[in-house]
Amino acid sequence: MESIFNPSSVAVIGASGAPGKWGFGIFARLIGGGNDRPVYPVNNRVDQILGVRTYPSLLDIPGPVELAIIVSPPETVPSVMSDCVAKGVKGAVVVTAGFAEVGEKGKAAERRVVEMAREGGIRFVGPNCMGHFNTAADLMTAGEMTGVPRGPIACISQSGNFGGYVIWRGAQMGIGFSKFVSTGNEADLKLEDYLEYLAQDDETKVITAYIEGIRDPRRFFALARDITKAKPVVVMKSGRTSEGARAAWSHTAALAGEDAIHDAMFRQCGVIRVGEADEMFDIAVALVAQPRPRGRRVAILTGGGGFGVVATDACVRLGLEIAELSPETIETLNKYLPPRWSHGNPVDMAGTSNTSYGCMGTLLKAEGVDAVLGMSCVGSPSTVPSGPDVPDAVRKAAEYAEYVADEEAKLVDGLLERVKRHDKPIVLAYAPAGNESPAVRKLNQRGFFVYPTPERAVRVLAHLVRYGEYLASVGV
Amino acid sequence: MESIFNPSSVAVIGASGAPGKWGFGIFARLIGGGNDRPVYPVNNRVDQILGVRTYPSLLDIPGPVELAIIVSPPETVPSVMSDCVAKGVKGAVVVTAGFAEVGEKGKAAERRVVEMAREGGIRFVGPNCMGHFNTAADLMTAGEMTGVPRGPIACISQSGNFGGYVIWRGAQMGIGFSKFVSTGNEADLKLEDYLEYLAQDDETKVITAYIEGIRDPRRFFALARDITKAKPVVVMKSGRTSEGARAAWSHTAALAGEDAIHDAMFRQCGVIRVGEADEMFDIAVALVAQPRPRGRRVAILTGGGGFGVVATDACVRLGLEIAELSPETIETLNKYLPPRWSHGNPVDMAGTSNTSYGCMGTLLKAEGVDAVLGMSCVGSPSTVPSGPDVPDAVRKAAEYAEYVADEEAKLVDGLLERVKRHDKPIVLAYAPAGNESPAVRKLNQRGFFVYPTPERAVRVLAHLVRYGEYLASVGV
Repeated sequence: MESIFNPSSVAVIGASGAPGKWGFGIFARLIGGGNDRPVYPVNNRVDQILGVRTYPSLLDIPGPVELAIIVSPPETVPSVMSDCVAKGVKGAVVVTAGFAEVGEKGKAAERRVVEMAREGGIRFVGPNCMGHFNTAADLMTAGEMTGVPRGPIACISQSGNFGGYVIWRGAQMGIGFSKFVSTGNEADLKLEDYLEYLAQDDETKVITAYIEGIRDPRRFFALARDITKAKPVVVMKSGRTSEGARAAWSHTAALAGEDAIHDAMFRQCGVIRVGEADEMFDIAVALVAQPRPRGRRVAILTGGGGFGVVATDACVRLGLEIAELSPETIETLNKYLPPRWSHGNPVDMAGTSNTSYGCMGTLLKAEGVDAVLGMSCVGSPSTVPSGPDVPDAVRKAAEYAEYVADEEAKLVDGLLERVKRHDKPIVLAYAPAGNESPAVRKLNQRGFFVYPTPERAVRVLAHLVRYGEYLASVGV
Repeated sequence: MESIFNPSSVAVIGASGAPGKWGFGIFARLIGGGNDRPVYPVNNRVDQILGVRTYPSLLDIPGPVELAIIVSPPETVPSVMSDCVAKGVKGAVVVTAGFAEVGEKGKAAERRVVEMAREGGIRFVGPNCMGHFNTAADLMTAGEMTGVPRGPIACISQSGNFGGYVIWRGAQMGIGFSKFVSTGNEADLKLEDYLEYLAQDDETKVITAYIEGIRDPRRFFALARDITKAKPVVVMKSGRTSEGARAAWSHTAALAGEDAIHDAMFRQCGVIRVGEADEMFDIAVALVAQPRPRGRRVAILTGGGGFGVVATDACVRLGLEIAELSPETIETLNKYLPPRWSHGNPVDMAGTSNTSYGCMGTLLKAEGVDAVLGMSCVGSPSTVPSGPDVPDAVRKAAEYAEYVADEEAKLVDGLLERVKRHDKPIVLAYAPAGNESPAVRKLNQRGFFVYPTPERAVRVLAHLVRYGEYLASVGV
């Protein structure tokens, strides 16, 4: 596995000079990195690609090749694999499609390639995959992906396009990744192998996976039960309906299986199952930064009543409890809030926002509160227009708003210090001034992501609570 | 109602020169518009605000005042309302909070204000609200909102902060609004009144509403049943759980009622009920632009298999059917796609994207298909890196990618022409190159929003189908 994720030399069989071709994108990514690892393009029709000398075959390369990336047409793959064996290659990524997923003939070809690799001591990713990456090693074979920041989240994807989405969305959310692999048909290396590898990878703090079918459920269960005690595993499992399962079969020849059985299995081994693409990242970032909740009692703080109602609904529907606030907590909040505040949970700040940090600190400290949910609590709104046509006084006010926003960012450190001291999570949603406010940028950087909607924040909190309960139930 | 949404003159009672105060934001918004409507600040402590001369009281204003915006403290509101009557004001927006929502004393004060207004022939919004706007009249009293574009969607919100969110999110999605009102405690004008008004408003094509409680369910039902035949009504109703209902009561003194009863009522009068904040806009924009589906049979087109599986699951769970493709349709698709394509529905383009427009057209035309769902079908990915350190050939490739993206944008017109010709909706999700690609920008502008996730797109399609079925059931 180390040869695949951290090779000292790479060859691209089927490298191409034609933009738009996969063999171009992958080669361009590999040579675009900032390291000295040799990358050899194999192509018998042109002399050079992007200024790099090509080799007609793998065997013509003078130096050793640890990892082979195979992008050449399906009919060439068996002979390429034979070359890999002859060359002493250790690992391969077979991007090429047209194997088990296209029927019996493809299945037979796939079996042949597996046998050759086994005999030659080669382990491989794919076929029918979209590549992989390791940000720490500056290695990137996933053609479409650019500028993925280094970070603590790993992703195993049984779908290339879902994987691509995941990375795209991650980049949008400013999330960093450790490793990624598009597993394809899993002819040789399987979901379970990657899981085992990532469990021991120090760069990875949270493992996420998009799964269509689990080929070895027994092994998956045993592995996951061990891993989740120390490292959270977040899974999006599709093929939940019989129609979806059929689609999964034609996609990666994966048997989707009974959804209810998967649900029970994931629950029993502490795997966090999500229902939607975005939810996978919402919870993954929270698992990196947030303390583990000790119970289900939530204090809701909101800039306005509407989100208080929406969040209460969402909490109750997901099995969370609305915490009872003690008289002492109410009294402390009285000091921060105007007389019209709700005097209960949800704590409706009634349109004020300048005391939200004090309120958040009070609720984090409060007895009987296991977690805080804050909406419209960060990201001071600018209440003044800007632009060339506004009067001087308004422009001054805009400067003042900017000053207020900068001041707010200074409060973030104190808030996060409180989170640490009281060892309780705080999940935030909706910054009225948008995610460009300095405070929100700081919170996002520290892993306290400000979710766009209350519903997304509540889902995250519910996952945190359930995972905490699971860990307690297995004595961790 | 016209005096409220389209007044010829406005006074702000409680206007302030202090940035951060509501009386400042509202006044700044009102004078910031590009029209000649007189706006009078009423404040008895300073001489001028933002360079505009103040008046100690409403009665000191020389000209007529059609609309009064009241932001002064709650104890002053009765006497201000009395001044409004004396001045001959026609409508008012009472932003000030501290009435029915704070208990018996507030309730009595609210009743007194209503009686005075009734006797003086004044209708008013609020109290305890966040203002309103009318983009066509360049009128904006919702303090926090800036640069709201004009458009076909109106929003009635029983929560100021939910309303603020709605506008913020709309702006992020590039959605234009016609009118907005934060209804507050609804002491005088109620949800039902705004609904009736917007039904007749030519600027409004879709009415959205955030509702905590319906004060006159009979009238709401009768109105909605009529309106939805010609103009879609999208509702987010909170207070679904008993805890949420309790929170709603303390927020706007609204009785949330039984959730199942609301569900049944909305269904019977053709109201589209959404479960989350974002869903409200997702469906609102689609209702403006998309043709009405004639059935539930969906063709799924996807750049990769993973999204095909996820979308199939989502469709089946929401009661949509996966269309059976005819041999002729399969044959036409064979011309566009490589041999490895799925040869069925979902149509997995297997990593190709350059023929997606041809495929979308084919599926729109296909017999047995009522709607098309397309994922990774628009927004050509750039497969080449950019930046100062890339070799010349790579830079050329980047230029080529830009050229391809521009070419793609030209295909959008043909696609939308096909949508019109075949009179079937096409709902799109996930543009691999991001929403900045010229094609995606064009699609968004035309109201064919490219949703970030397959799940969001499927939810929209399910709403469109159900609304179409409702209309057919009532003979429209």
